[in-house]
Amino acid sequence: MNRPCISRCTFLNAAAGIALLAAAASFPGCGRSEPARKPNIILIFCDDLGYGDLGSYGHPTIRTPNLDRLAVEGQRWTNFYAAASVCTPSRAGLLTGRYPIRSGMCDDNIRVLFPWSAGGIPENEVTLAEALKAEGYATACIGKWHLGHLPGYLPTNNGFDYYFGIPYSNDMDKVRYLSMAEEMDPKTEEFNVPLMRNEEVIERPADQNTLTKRYVEESVSFIRSNRDKPFFLYLAHTMPHIPLFASVEFNRRSPRGPYGDTVEEIDAGVGRIVETLRETGIDENTLVVFTSDNGPWWTYREHSGSAGLLRDGKGSTWEGGMREPAIFWWPGRVQPRVVADLGSTMDIYTTVCSLAGAPVPDDRIVDGMDLGPALLESGPGPREVMIYYSGRRVFAVRKGPYKAHYFTKTEYIGQKELEHDPPLLYNLNHDPSEKYDIAADHPEILADLERELQQHAKDLVPGENQLIRRIE
Amino acid sequence: MNRPCISRCTFLNAAAGIALLAAAASFPGCGRSEPARKPNIILIFCDDLGYGDLGSYGHPTIRTPNLDRLAVEGQRWTNFYAAASVCTPSRAGLLTGRYPIRSGMCDDNIRVLFPWSAGGIPENEVTLAEALKAEGYATACIGKWHLGHLPGYLPTNNGFDYYFGIPYSNDMDKVRYLSMAEEMDPKTEEFNVPLMRNEEVIERPADQNTLTKRYVEESVSFIRSNRDKPFFLYLAHTMPHIPLFASVEFNRRSPRGPYGDTVEEIDAGVGRIVETLRETGIDENTLVVFTSDNGPWWTYREHSGSAGLLRDGKGSTWEGGMREPAIFWWPGRVQPRVVADLGSTMDIYTTVCSLAGAPVPDDRIVDGMDLGPALLESGPGPREVMIYYSGRRVFAVRKGPYKAHYFTKTEYIGQKELEHDPPLLYNLNHDPSEKYDIAADHPEILADLERELQQHAKDLVPGENQLIRRIE
Repeated sequence: MNRPCISRCTFLNAAAGIALLAAAASFPGCGRSEPARKPNIILIFCDDLGYGDLGSYGHPTIRTPNLDRLAVEGQRWTNFYAAASVCTPSRAGLLTGRYPIRSGMCDDNIRVLFPWSAGGIPENEVTLAEALKAEGYATACIGKWHLGHLPGYLPTNNGFDYYFGIPYSNDMDKVRYLSMAEEMDPKTEEFNVPLMRNEEVIERPADQNTLTKRYVEESVSFIRSNRDKPFFLYLAHTMPHIPLFASVEFNRRSPRGPYGDTVEEIDAGVGRIVETLRETGIDENTLVVFTSDNGPWWTYREHSGSAGLLRDGKGSTWEGGMREPAIFWWPGRVQPRVVADLGSTMDIYTTVCSLAGAPVPDDRIVDGMDLGPALLESGPGPREVMIYYSGRRVFAVRKGPYKAHYFTKTEYIGQKELEHDPPLLYNLNHDPSEKYDIAADHPEILADLERELQQHAKDLVPGENQLIRRIE
Repeated sequence: MNRPCISRCTFLNAAAGIALLAAAASFPGCGRSEPARKPNIILIFCDDLGYGDLGSYGHPTIRTPNLDRLAVEGQRWTNFYAAASVCTPSRAGLLTGRYPIRSGMCDDNIRVLFPWSAGGIPENEVTLAEALKAEGYATACIGKWHLGHLPGYLPTNNGFDYYFGIPYSNDMDKVRYLSMAEEMDPKTEEFNVPLMRNEEVIERPADQNTLTKRYVEESVSFIRSNRDKPFFLYLAHTMPHIPLFASVEFNRRSPRGPYGDTVEEIDAGVGRIVETLRETGIDENTLVVFTSDNGPWWTYREHSGSAGLLRDGKGSTWEGGMREPAIFWWPGRVQPRVVADLGSTMDIYTTVCSLAGAPVPDDRIVDGMDLGPALLESGPGPREVMIYYSGRRVFAVRKGPYKAHYFTKTEYIGQKELEHDPPLLYNLNHDPSEKYDIAADHPEILADLERELQQHAKDLVPGENQLIRRIE
């Protein structure tokens, strides 16, 4: 541990303290013998948050001062992708570092796991929590899981020492049919969602009004309890997925309405977590990552978010469905800047394994890439290609600035699938809103993208479909 | 002047210097007898820049680190409006603090002044430059004017001591018909636009490749020459209006393509200006304001900007046509924060007059409001209502979060005008993209907005139409 060592060093004084604190870990006078401590990892993951929903990503009326500060002090990525455009496959990609097709956590029609689902994340996948636990990390999953709710699939069976949260989406287990108007003026008791601690249901229906608040309290408590060893905290907020709930302090406070209430409460929670890191003196040894699982769920009108200048939202392979805010913060280590290089939630897996000294599994394809050089040394990002799956099928591919769409759907519900032959082609750097098809002018780029897809398909072994399995 | 006085004060030392520099102006030991010096004003105005075109307003690939820093160190306004959705009336509103209908600088069909126009800003209007000149300010207009190019209407006849720039838009005076493809691969010699110094044409066609660079050099030179007296610099960039040109250092450098090149060159110019303020020691006595005249000109595809999450662009009274980035920076005076209160370019007039101790004309209606309390004391903004003109007609009105559209046009060119009865009604705080019409649920709000319009119409005396006058 750095801090006791630093406090023994006599050369420290108020004037020079800040610079020396940063340098002290390697200062020979400290007589440290143990290797550098593994960094703590806090991964804050939202649900259905759009690309344009933070102040620092251009929203005019959602107030996110804590995240905006992290964005300025750390890195704000602007071409960062979820692994899928809906919840279950997106989270499978995040926690395995692999396109969800490999783990089988996706289907063309049943887009996510439901309370009647019998499937979940396969035993043979190595989750990020498992990889870190093997390196001595304390691990906790706090929040929404959605990777299988039968006992074998729960977080505590997937590398997490501790679990507190709801096992699937907060709009499931409805006690009766609810109209859209009713879902937009929700009562928490009408969603019979269980709240669990480890493998036990401790509250049902979960009181959703206080869910965000309790997730943050659990997180703060986990951080305090584990301040003396490396830890991995996966805080997967239930919000801003509908039905929208916020605690008394935030309810009806945001100019953006109920949706803004939930995002502002999440932002305040980020502030409390960072404050806790500073109080416990571990801020300079902790990487905080903030992002979300997929774009806004348009269907719910003002109760859904905004993809900013990007096209479409949740469930779509247009940019608004999969490109997300992504903030990396680690004082003194992550170099402050805006990064327009490509990145993906799958890269979080590989990057964090690398930072923790955990081996990335070598008996399977891992799609994540190590963003370390971009984060810590301002080098170029390693990712060149991103593949956009819709269920088990490839809809689009991006390489560098170019993206080809082979299929598109225009809305999450009531969507009509269109096939494009020749594919649509966009230069996303010039045209982030995907307005101007340039396919006719660039057959050579289409051919190159096609080659990337063939390369991807060559080694692909789709996992057994987990989403079609039903409880008998 | 503060600086010689401060340098004589013996209590200054390196450790405490920064705080004391701020306090020194009023420190009795300095023996100052003159009143506090009037602040310098630098107003940087872009052409066709969209709401979403800066990094700090959410653009993924346009790099604007200098403006983003000003936005963090100062105030970033998110509900700030140009006075009109096209160039000439917008600039008339900015420099008179009045809706352009009052000065007659607008027309329903001839949207802006052209080289054949004989009209211009009427003699009896009191421009911001005239108001400040009367208070002893040195004044310069550098850049695009577009308020009349016959001798009587030029900047030097409207309160500016000095003028360097082009008198109207950079796509005018074409030497031959140009297809859209040609305009998007432009040659500067095909636009026979004059470059003027004071009343003289010094170059024709203006070399547009170096226009932004030369505007910044002229600005730096003006600042250096006037460091010892209060000054007003109105830097009205020609870019990013098409045709797009950037100097060698910026050409083909932005990931966003030619449009990004021009915005990034403007951003670098902002950096140079701020650096000049610091070098000359007048940064703490200078208010810098950055905004634009209207939204992006969609017609020009990738050669136009982005309104971010806002609907439509230039020429439209949807939000994307008139809501603009707006950054206020004055170290130690403007309180750093994001402001979602309403503001308008017309308010710059009244605010600056107030800061400079210049009387706002009391023999006419001035629509601008003093934003001082919001800028300097973090108080609420004073503006409740914004009226959206299209030419000489009211198309929409906003009060608080609510906006009613009586008429809409959907595109700048090929637009079809629609009348809405009942009007469309949006809650812009909840629904900034103007997607969800709530008129049916809120007749009382529509009635209130209607009353605001009647109030506005009651005292309105439209100015003589300046845009239909032609050179004989």
